[in-house]
Amino acid sequence: MKFSTVRAGGAVLYGAVTETGFSAVNDLFPDWPTLREVVEVGGFDALAAEADARGDTHALSEVTFLPPVPAPEKIICVGVNFPDRNAEYKDGQEAPPNMSLFPRFPRSFTGHGQPLVRPPESPQLDYEGEIAIVIGKGGRRIPEAEAYDHIAAVTLCNEGTIRDWVRHAKFNVTQGKNWDGSGAMGPWLVPFTDRAQLADVEIVTKVNGEVRQQDRTGRMLFPIPRQIAYISTFTTLVPGDIIVTGTPTGAGARFDPPRFLVPGDEIEVSVEGIGTLVNGVVDE
Amino acid sequence: MKFSTVRAGGAVLYGAVTETGFSAVNDLFPDWPTLREVVEVGGFDALAAEADARGDTHALSEVTFLPPVPAPEKIICVGVNFPDRNAEYKDGQEAPPNMSLFPRFPRSFTGHGQPLVRPPESPQLDYEGEIAIVIGKGGRRIPEAEAYDHIAAVTLCNEGTIRDWVRHAKFNVTQGKNWDGSGAMGPWLVPFTDRAQLADVEIVTKVNGEVRQQDRTGRMLFPIPRQIAYISTFTTLVPGDIIVTGTPTGAGARFDPPRFLVPGDEIEVSVEGIGTLVNGVVDE
Repeated sequence: MKFSTVRAGGAVLYGAVTETGFSAVNDLFPDWPTLREVVEVGGFDALAAEADARGDTHALSEVTFLPPVPAPEKIICVGVNFPDRNAEYKDGQEAPPNMSLFPRFPRSFTGHGQPLVRPPESPQLDYEGEIAIVIGKGGRRIPEAEAYDHIAAVTLCNEGTIRDWVRHAKFNVTQGKNWDGSGAMGPWLVPFTDRAQLADVEIVTKVNGEVRQQDRTGRMLFPIPRQIAYISTFTTLVPGDIIVTGTPTGAGARFDPPRFLVPGDEIEVSVEGIGTLVNGVVDE
Repeated sequence: MKFSTVRAGGAVLYGAVTETGFSAVNDLFPDWPTLREVVEVGGFDALAAEADARGDTHALSEVTFLPPVPAPEKIICVGVNFPDRNAEYKDGQEAPPNMSLFPRFPRSFTGHGQPLVRPPESPQLDYEGEIAIVIGKGGRRIPEAEAYDHIAAVTLCNEGTIRDWVRHAKFNVTQGKNWDGSGAMGPWLVPFTDRAQLADVEIVTKVNGEVRQQDRTGRMLFPIPRQIAYISTFTTLVPGDIIVTGTPTGAGARFDPPRFLVPGDEIEVSVEGIGTLVNGVVDE
């Protein structure tokens, strides 16, 4: 089953996305105000049982999808994590020994079905399709061999980027990666089951139906268990934390000439077993 | 008056640091659970009045200082912001046209009087003395000329860094700047009064009484109003957000040989009109 956070009738709700609609169940779990608390306690089975019993409370047309975890303590993104991505930078540098990491603020993401926002300051809004994992069991210095035990759920991310602002300063991509509403997360959390769900699955990003990015997680330079182990070396991971695990080659900036997003475009990020995150583009 | 968040008798309290001790007043303001809500509503005068009326509730020896704003939505640090800092990198690059920015997670900071934590993974714990500003009135695309109106308070930061992890990866300093308890914030919030409080004041960092960093905010490459304007171009600043405004030249890594921190060291970050942030060092 799939679990989403939505806005409906002016309220923020969470529940299950069913074959036929949406079943809001958050009113039955007052101790779990958001899906962050649900992943913390491993409450997906309880949600599913109540959603089954209750049936749909809303048609999908009545809900607006929000990022599934509304206020994670940390969202950490992994950069340059697929073959050829390092070469794309054309800076003559060897692939680095460790993964590049950058935080994003929750307000830089919108939900499934909502448009990414292109600001007036730049025409270089770009897409990056990725898998995001949600931490269930926190920890510090988590061994790579135990890393999968700390994942509660998986979701999708369009790690939308204002490309020219990534290189605005001497170091760090912060300002290119944190424009309000420039990326998206969702549509839902899929409970994590086992390593086969993540270890070698295909990620495909399409723009207006044309495949732009396509690769498999099995080719990651820094696989997900290594990400969890490395990140938790320096910071304590807590329930609800999100790791955005890296994008394949083929972002718009890599074409000659570049193919940035414009209003009217539709971007789909799909991963087998998780679903498809769809977003348009709007000028602010 | 100066306002701190402290732990005392197992509880987290906030109140005023007086000439003689600490006056906890948070129980009188149930609508403001933390100093984040106090800066949001501009409640310092109300806190001061109650602290004056009540007098000390604790001796300073009975309280443990915590970072003044317990869970800001964002902590954004400005890098390479004083003359000679860019030259220190010795990479032959010109000073950049825009400021370098990186987020830190709240858990990377401890409070005044607590030791910075040197992890077993690296001997390169380094100090960086800085002024931190706390946003009171939020906003997006704040004009530089109005930027001071958005500051509620000022405090001090030891932006402690695990130096070798700053360069672990191709881009971004994330993993060198976010070790749990590697930096400190405090001891208190000083309400912001006017630009003279920040525009040209001296920052001094001492290690075991020896001056290591000493410069004036008037020499910042990117002055504080420009920081607020630039950052709010891409992300909405909200009450409680913290901008750590940049460190003068003279961190331990810049000496030959480098002078990193070791257990037993005492680091003092002082700014006229704000106070002194003092921290020791402990091995994890």
